[in-house]
Amino acid sequence: MTTTLPMRFPREGLPSRVRIHEVGPRDGLQNEKGQVPTDVKAEFIHRLAAAGLTTVEATSFVHPKWVPQLADAESLYPRLSDIEGVHLPVLVPNTRGLERAQALGATRIAIFASATETFAQRNLNRSVAESMAMFEPVVAAAKEAGSHVRGYLSMCFGDPWEGAVPVPQVVAACRRLLAMGCDELSLGDTIGVATAGHVQELLAALNEAGVPTPALGVHFHDTYGQALANTLAALQHGVTTVDASAGGLGGCPFAKSATGNLATEDLVWMLQGLGIDTGVDLDALVATSAWMAGELGRPSPSRTVIALSHKES
Amino acid sequence: MTTTLPMRFPREGLPSRVRIHEVGPRDGLQNEKGQVPTDVKAEFIHRLAAAGLTTVEATSFVHPKWVPQLADAESLYPRLSDIEGVHLPVLVPNTRGLERAQALGATRIAIFASATETFAQRNLNRSVAESMAMFEPVVAAAKEAGSHVRGYLSMCFGDPWEGAVPVPQVVAACRRLLAMGCDELSLGDTIGVATAGHVQELLAALNEAGVPTPALGVHFHDTYGQALANTLAALQHGVTTVDASAGGLGGCPFAKSATGNLATEDLVWMLQGLGIDTGVDLDALVATSAWMAGELGRPSPSRTVIALSHKES
Repeated sequence: MTTTLPMRFPREGLPSRVRIHEVGPRDGLQNEKGQVPTDVKAEFIHRLAAAGLTTVEATSFVHPKWVPQLADAESLYPRLSDIEGVHLPVLVPNTRGLERAQALGATRIAIFASATETFAQRNLNRSVAESMAMFEPVVAAAKEAGSHVRGYLSMCFGDPWEGAVPVPQVVAACRRLLAMGCDELSLGDTIGVATAGHVQELLAALNEAGVPTPALGVHFHDTYGQALANTLAALQHGVTTVDASAGGLGGCPFAKSATGNLATEDLVWMLQGLGIDTGVDLDALVATSAWMAGELGRPSPSRTVIALSHKES
Repeated sequence: MTTTLPMRFPREGLPSRVRIHEVGPRDGLQNEKGQVPTDVKAEFIHRLAAAGLTTVEATSFVHPKWVPQLADAESLYPRLSDIEGVHLPVLVPNTRGLERAQALGATRIAIFASATETFAQRNLNRSVAESMAMFEPVVAAAKEAGSHVRGYLSMCFGDPWEGAVPVPQVVAACRRLLAMGCDELSLGDTIGVATAGHVQELLAALNEAGVPTPALGVHFHDTYGQALANTLAALQHGVTTVDASAGGLGGCPFAKSATGNLATEDLVWMLQGLGIDTGVDLDALVATSAWMAGELGRPSPSRTVIALSHKES
């Protein structure tokens, strides 16, 4: 049935192609309990690339003390050198991280900023202004080296300590990141509270402030079940870059602390139905996530993975 | 945080009010393994009504042999007589079921038809034409008695045996149900394969065929994670009646045979964010679903219930 469903019904006003920024190996695995063996990570990324994903965020050069799950970045990254035609960005927190990444030949970089003061303090141990100042030389050095730089911005909609985040505050942070040289932004709903109208309101405000939609990606979490509906709202606004995590890795919805990423498979199902090209082979992706779920020893939270794995068994 | 989030961002072109047709006690519980005590069902429905739901489908007068979970309809329904100002429709499969419901004073009736031949044979043991002929006197008798009649139509998008279901086939079945006197239809994506474009295509085709949108409700399952995005697409087409199941009852997403209904809480979260009035008190609803999950001995599959129960604990 996977060959005939979903039926394709393109809609006017939606993009014809969407680039999925796959975050499973980085954002997903860094939020899993326990460390996944480097072998498994390497196979995971190879399989994601083989499934047709064109951007797979590979790992993070954050200090191992903060993210022990990705402490093997130095040994993992070189093992991806045989992957061709697929972007493999890496996260760097500061100049030291950038240098580690560059020493391995990484040319696509991501930094991680916050739209709120509380999260900046908790996650980066400095104010928003201080963290922006910290990122400035990182981005400058990356651009100097000819790299592509993505700027993650977290807490763009709600913050667990501050509640609702004012749109102008998010717009200001976005402009700051673009002004320092970021090529693209990823608007993060870190705690999953955004709804469709909020998404469109922020996107419209960014446009009004001179930020072009092609520079914007969206990064939704499914904490309140809103991730895919919010993605649809973003597509209707012209967004063509969507972050997702294979198998919904990154926070287990079976646990009380559910903060799962949008599952790539559920996204691909919707995009296929809308006739939007992604280049992804859904069956290969589902098989990859089902395999990874086995490695992690728990079922995938992706509804599509559950449904299609069942059919295959 | 529940008082400040989600932030409200009304969007043009969306309805200002949505009527949620709560199906948890009927569609939800009939798909749960094991029989829930009548006491618990009665309390569940009372709590849903108290939480502000204006339509709560209470039970089904199907032969107990087919749906043993709802075999207590005769003893349950009279225990709801103190609920005021809330519609409590019941499902009836045939004239015998209608008579049982009417003997208890039920004035809102629902029948259950199929858009596909295979499901009609499997679920109703007759062809689509034969089943429509069977429903005709049921609807006539209900209308004769002054009742409001809802016509469920299942398999409106995909069918597990037939694959994709042609839109004109669904339109024909809808017209047949309306012609026999149904006041409202519920378009069911029984296996959860629909995507947003498909939803809008069907709704547009129904309008072209003369079916007014106010007569249409949508009934999505979350098998592929599409239920809420599909609901958003339906709202954008002007639909104002949405079926949902408190706590996502009706098929456990933790099991391989996941066929869960759209969770009412996830729907309410989105509608609140869009500034769309439902009359529902989300905290009271979450508390009800958390209590019901305890009665069933398993966690609710609703992401919003998980998230908000966690905050409260």
